Amino acid sequence: MVDLKGRDILHGAQFTREEIEHILRVAEDVRARLKEQRALDVVKGAVLGSLFFEPSTRTRLSFETAMHRLGGSVVGFSSAEATSTAKGETLADTIRTVDQYVDIIAMRHPEIGSAQAAADVAQAPILNGGDGAGQHPTQALLDLFTICAERGGVEGRTIALCGDLKNGRTVHAGAEVYKHYDCRLIFVAPDPLKMPAEITERLRAHGLKVEETSDLAAALAQADVLYMTRIQKERFEDPAEYERLKDSYILTRALVERTRPDVTILHPLPRVNEIAADVDDLSNAAYFRQMKNGVYVRMALIGLVLGRL
Amino acid sequence: MVDLKGRDILHGAQFTREEIEHILRVAEDVRARLKEQRALDVVKGAVLGSLFFEPSTRTRLSFETAMHRLGGSVVGFSSAEATSTAKGETLADTIRTVDQYVDIIAMRHPEIGSAQAAADVAQAPILNGGDGAGQHPTQALLDLFTICAERGGVEGRTIALCGDLKNGRTVHAGAEVYKHYDCRLIFVAPDPLKMPAEITERLRAHGLKVEETSDLAAALAQADVLYMTRIQKERFEDPAEYERLKDSYILTRALVERTRPDVTILHPLPRVNEIAADVDDLSNAAYFRQMKNGVYVRMALIGLVLGRL
Amino acid sequence: MVDLKGRDILHGAQFTREEIEHILRVAEDVRARLKEQRALDVVKGAVLGSLFFEPSTRTRLSFETAMHRLGGSVVGFSSAEATSTAKGETLADTIRTVDQYVDIIAMRHPEIGSAQAAADVAQAPILNGGDGAGQHPTQALLDLFTICAERGGVEGRTIALCGDLKNGRTVHAGAEVYKHYDCRLIFVAPDPLKMPAEITERLRAHGLKVEETSDLAAALAQADVLYMTRIQKERFEDPAEYERLKDSYILTRALVERTRPDVTILHPLPRVNEIAADVDDLSNAAYFRQMKNGVYVRMALIGLVLGRL
Repeated sequence: MVDLKGRDILHGAQFTREEIEHILRVAEDVRARLKEQRALDVVKGAVLGSLFFEPSTRTRLSFETAMHRLGGSVVGFSSAEATSTAKGETLADTIRTVDQYVDIIAMRHPEIGSAQAAADVAQAPILNGGDGAGQHPTQALLDLFTICAERGGVEGRTIALCGDLKNGRTVHAGAEVYKHYDCRLIFVAPDPLKMPAEITERLRAHGLKVEETSDLAAALAQADVLYMTRIQKERFEDPAEYERLKDSYILTRALVERTRPDVTILHPLPRVNEIAADVDDLSNAAYFRQMKNGVYVRMALIGLVLGRL
Repeated sequence: MVDLKGRDILHGAQFTREEIEHILRVAEDVRARLKEQRALDVVKGAVLGSLFFEPSTRTRLSFETAMHRLGGSVVGFSSAEATSTAKGETLADTIRTVDQYVDIIAMRHPEIGSAQAAADVAQAPILNGGDGAGQHPTQALLDLFTICAERGGVEGRTIALCGDLKNGRTVHAGAEVYKHYDCRLIFVAPDPLKMPAEITERLRAHGLKVEETSDLAAALAQADVLYMTRIQKERFEDPAEYERLKDSYILTRALVERTRPDVTILHPLPRVNEIAADVDDLSNAAYFRQMKNGVYVRMALIGLVLGRL
Repeated sequence: MVDLKGRDILHGAQFTREEIEHILRVAEDVRARLKEQRALDVVKGAVLGSLFFEPSTRTRLSFETAMHRLGGSVVGFSSAEATSTAKGETLADTIRTVDQYVDIIAMRHPEIGSAQAAADVAQAPILNGGDGAGQHPTQALLDLFTICAERGGVEGRTIALCGDLKNGRTVHAGAEVYKHYDCRLIFVAPDPLKMPAEITERLRAHGLKVEETSDLAAALAQADVLYMTRIQKERFEDPAEYERLKDSYILTRALVERTRPDVTILHPLPRVNEIAADVDDLSNAAYFRQMKNGVYVRMALIGLVLGRL
């Protein structure tokens, strides 16, 4: 029996397969119920602390929408400038303070390990919305939910992940949930941005078929799902290196139609130019549906962690 | 039968007279109901995306208050810095993402045409809260509502509009709704800030009496309504030009009392110094009541567009 | 009979002892009711304007959480940059505008007297959340509530207040509420940061025992309550003076255990380094409970001022 009440959601690696499937089932149930009504009224009176020490439209608004559609309220901030960090306060003190106010905290912070540090001092459950180049577990779950919704499941599927696999927290967190399934992963990256060997080896140890290449077209030809990611300027120390690598992969409609017309295309967004605009109209371009699924998955997580779903 | 369900609200020019009068009637009904209770409970569970790419206290808080007083919730941002625009995301992608989350979007953006661009990609209705020097249709409707509330109607009235008529989106949007009425307009501006000829000609083609002058006192003597506007520093490329023109018109209590003591005085606010503080106490200084009317009109629009009023 | 309906909450000095005790009783009742349920539903439909012209995590989120837990809604801003102040609008005009929208206003502003200035033009009750080096009455009340909760009352207690007593608005506001009680105050500050003589004299005139020292250990030995405050960098004109004074007092666990192991330790937070981290684990370190009490006290004030508690 899966019970997530009171649990922190920190790493993709923290879940058992049973837990993952329970979360996805609850998210699917949330989706079905939202077809009948605009909101569920299950966490009325509860308050979410939405603490974004780093700007994020997508993840912040997704968590906040999820809380509102569960019938709860939100307080918070959208950048570190509006906080007492500027007065010299530690992260731990900020978290301990907000912990006195709210029932649950969603946070994004530029430092790896910050979500764990927050969980160490808070009574309220912490939902990690991204800690620097670290983890982003709710993203991993919504990606998995989307693959299941679009392809009927992840078992036996070939998933190509392409872009900055070295720094991309979404693909790192993803690796931790795919490992529970009998699927095949193809990592597509230029050499300096390859998936860390440590992750690749761990996945192989779990019995997954993992291949590496720098050739997008070759990977695409074999993929059921193509997960594109942005080359993240903010993770580069050397601007020249960014300039050299930023256009490594550009997915065009012509390439998709020529190589694998029915591939499911995902992207955590925001994108810069790695998916051309003409791809958007393909029925298998699923990245905006993926955004919507993010709300269902986060509603499921908030409801489960608060013991109300 | 007027039905605005699912409609975008983008331009002052989009409405028929029948639609305008329906909106004003619903707003009047909202006002009456709010005398009995603090909020209506008509859009419970719905979420407004409040996307302000450009700072605005007045318009943003007005839309958000309107949503809350209808029983709904709000997510959003109050400046572009807290968005993924900084990561290179296009407006279209930001809108498409938020469109997955919310039921309706109110937005302000510095570029002319941005609200239309948003409407082109969003399923959710878009409420244009100002697109650069472009349009601001909810302002035009609340101005009209206020004239009707203060003067019993707009037919047969003489309305003087004064200030930066070249760049002022509130007066441009206003022109598009006044054109449906048999009223007389006097445009008061220094030569470099005159109303664009294109708008003046269109109004005359509609049969309106339109006069132009640079003499505020002369216009005031004949006006039932004086609509003052701010010379907007942010619209000038040349600071010297701004300095030369910024104090073109300053409305004082003495001028009102001497020239037209019962004129209804409106202003979209914020003002800098174009209305002296001692004017505020006149019972016909209606610009703060105008702000309150903005909430009623926006409640009416949100409720109508969501099909709930 | 105490009735606070429609009252502004501006200064610690505005309350009678009877009013203070009524507020604390209502806050205690709120605390008891929140053990049974996540929120009270007493101000449904009401809107709080949360106007923070100066950043503050703690106070802003506390007011906003309080409003949500009373069943109300919130609109507002968390820094002056997102307001029309940048367009040259006066504080009075901003307040008059928001006053048209909301039922009650909580504000923080960098200028002394700004809350009073807002109250002068607003119909809605103003809750002063800090006006520069001026007042911070809700902080004074939550401090008092915490002393009562931790020590069973304030009568006969010895309270040491330590740190920047010259500029600290929390200790200034506190002095105005302690004066109603037969308690003993010890002011601990380096000479340049002493409590203004005017306040010390007023307290003595009220019959309080007031002592002054620069020796923290000596004061601690006699204290039931130690109220630490931060040396506030932002109040210093001369950075060298700040550097010289910033580490005047550092409370360590060793000092507490050696001198007065059972003293109740309070702090308005944020702290920099004036309380060492190892103090946090002492059961009598009450500063995070103090934060939670802030929500109860602000709920009581909002509910009373709106005539709903």
